[in-house]
Amino acid sequence: MVTDEQYAVALDAAHPLADQRALLMRADPDLIYLDGNSLGPLPAATADRLAAFVSDEWGVQLVRGWQTWVDLPVEVGDRLGAALLGAAAGQVLVTDSVTVNLYKLAWAALAASPPGRRVIVTTSQEFPTDAYVLQAVAEQLGGSVRVGEGALREDVALVSRSHVDYRSGEVLDVAARTAEAHAVGALALWDLSHSVGSVPVDLDAAGVDLAVGCTYKYLCAGPGAPAFLYVRQGLSDELRTPIPGWFGHRDQFAMTSDYVPAAGVTRFLAGTPPIAGILAVDSGIDLVSGVGVDVLRSASMALTTFLVDLADEWLAPLGFRVASSRDASRRGGHVVLAHQDAYSISAGLIQDAGVVADVRPPDLLRLAPVPLVTSFADVREGVRRIRDLVASGSYHDARPRGRVT
Amino acid sequence: MVTDEQYAVALDAAHPLADQRALLMRADPDLIYLDGNSLGPLPAATADRLAAFVSDEWGVQLVRGWQTWVDLPVEVGDRLGAALLGAAAGQVLVTDSVTVNLYKLAWAALAASPPGRRVIVTTSQEFPTDAYVLQAVAEQLGGSVRVGEGALREDVALVSRSHVDYRSGEVLDVAARTAEAHAVGALALWDLSHSVGSVPVDLDAAGVDLAVGCTYKYLCAGPGAPAFLYVRQGLSDELRTPIPGWFGHRDQFAMTSDYVPAAGVTRFLAGTPPIAGILAVDSGIDLVSGVGVDVLRSASMALTTFLVDLADEWLAPLGFRVASSRDASRRGGHVVLAHQDAYSISAGLIQDAGVVADVRPPDLLRLAPVPLVTSFADVREGVRRIRDLVASGSYHDARPRGRVT
Repeated sequence: MVTDEQYAVALDAAHPLADQRALLMRADPDLIYLDGNSLGPLPAATADRLAAFVSDEWGVQLVRGWQTWVDLPVEVGDRLGAALLGAAAGQVLVTDSVTVNLYKLAWAALAASPPGRRVIVTTSQEFPTDAYVLQAVAEQLGGSVRVGEGALREDVALVSRSHVDYRSGEVLDVAARTAEAHAVGALALWDLSHSVGSVPVDLDAAGVDLAVGCTYKYLCAGPGAPAFLYVRQGLSDELRTPIPGWFGHRDQFAMTSDYVPAAGVTRFLAGTPPIAGILAVDSGIDLVSGVGVDVLRSASMALTTFLVDLADEWLAPLGFRVASSRDASRRGGHVVLAHQDAYSISAGLIQDAGVVADVRPPDLLRLAPVPLVTSFADVREGVRRIRDLVASGSYHDARPRGRVT
Repeated sequence: MVTDEQYAVALDAAHPLADQRALLMRADPDLIYLDGNSLGPLPAATADRLAAFVSDEWGVQLVRGWQTWVDLPVEVGDRLGAALLGAAAGQVLVTDSVTVNLYKLAWAALAASPPGRRVIVTTSQEFPTDAYVLQAVAEQLGGSVRVGEGALREDVALVSRSHVDYRSGEVLDVAARTAEAHAVGALALWDLSHSVGSVPVDLDAAGVDLAVGCTYKYLCAGPGAPAFLYVRQGLSDELRTPIPGWFGHRDQFAMTSDYVPAAGVTRFLAGTPPIAGILAVDSGIDLVSGVGVDVLRSASMALTTFLVDLADEWLAPLGFRVASSRDASRRGGHVVLAHQDAYSISAGLIQDAGVVADVRPPDLLRLAPVPLVTSFADVREGVRRIRDLVASGSYHDARPRGRVT
């Protein structure tokens, strides 16, 4: 039976990632960490790499290090593209935040579209920052944002969506949705924050025009690590960035006062890029691509399926409802459980039960096993602790803090 | 005589910072590092602090660390403001790059100005990124950029200048120039990249409206470390950011799809801020404020004055001209020497003479002693090596690379 301890033990015995656990730090063996979709754990190699960078590169090479650092946003972008985005070289940069990158690309897309196309299509469920940025870009360029059914018409300049929904975990079909955008003459922009490193992505094959994404979730690059952006080959030369900076200049060190954009995607660099952060991203790419995103995806699907099965047995009787898809292939790396007390439960889990899961409005508990760290036994233990906490009612005393990104 | 070895030895004996050298790493005792204005050396405390952050905070607290990290852009901003900017709390953020921060503030200032004010005043000598951003903002908002004498008129919305010129090293009078801007009804924005941590800054007292600056030069926060921005109390609530992000929302974790700006300067946060980088900035603030910026400034003036004196004796006969002010109080942390072969000389110095100094168009060699590291004997040895290299003519074989930020 799915709730039996031996069932989890048997699943773990067949788990292909068990012998690679040491790739990620696991400081507290009693902690059940189910928030990999908010902040990925620390890769063991990253701690060493960052220490070596600080002491041996910055500390010793000093400014001479820029001879190699200057190319890192492009080089690590190319590595990310090849390893995890299905993107040929020259289309990806690692730099800035998702918010800033989305602003640059959405602005560029709308500014380049003809006067009759001034609509950005997105969904009412989009991640808040995406919604804010798209609305701001539309206002700044005399356009508007449209959501809902029938939104795709000939006046649409840009369709911007998330590959995996940050709440429901729903996985969209990137190729099909991109084709729909193209069918009305619009560009397609994808936010890959909740998919990169977790769900396979194939941007070139899907004909995607623009993409952005985050590296501190499934790429394990650390809190606030630099994000990435993708611009399809051939498109970038038609676009201009709203934030022209010296790193995006055709001849950066000529230091002329006139901006001439660099060829290709490089024009979307702006200020001096964060070198240590980019190296942490590079370590994350090594980690995920070393194991293989397909292997991680398949382990993640098995872990979340087990979690859903356990929730049906142990949590449904306590008022929980599975709010993500029951089809693992249509669900990203996290499972969503709805419960009217989700906020207090999440706080109680962290404070009293040694389970980290986060919460999203209005009543959603998000649970994301980390395939390289979380065993099936951990999933079972986590769901058991949720059951016991909620059954005891003691979580009502927990103070929700909710400041978890 | 100024060129005598004993002269430098005597100056060093009276040097107030000699016993604090261990605060900064000095890996290669034979290297004469005169590029502190491009990339500051590694503070000893920073290496330890970053390692502890990675292993003990990210690695162990995981996402729970955000309970404290979330406030760091504001908290470290407040510390920077109090310690080094003359700014009361609630006006400074540490986040993003100088380019992105300048874009946000210049855009906000121009967007908030009445229709008859659409001119941004700057100088033709401004740092390239600043020039690009100001031009872009003016274009995006139907305005224009004006440079030169007589630029300040009633149609000016914003005056944007650097406190210390990145080439000449000239120090502008912030209070006087700000008052001139205010006299025509314009806002004053200062780029403090080449002054913060080197030249005392007093924003509140000078009545400055807006400021940005960089932390990887005199604040020693590492390559591409996050920059800062300052918005005068009372002004920020009148401004809106062009890049609305979830960290700048009034109620970030309500996660509504409508953007409502946070009160005060916090609205100028955008995406998830780079936590490790902000901690490196905090270490840099500790370093500089612990020694005292006045002490560093006075040491810097003595070192650069000695450098100018030596250049007069040893380098003027070889075709060098002192291109920065001879009045140390009107010169920032670096001395500028013009020479027609500056590029090759800089390359030769790095490759063959163990001297790091950088170069800026058209013919300027920049030399910035680091007061906590560079002794008077180092300055003498550096100028001596420049003399010997140029006298030998061997630098003609050096390949200029010039990719030094």
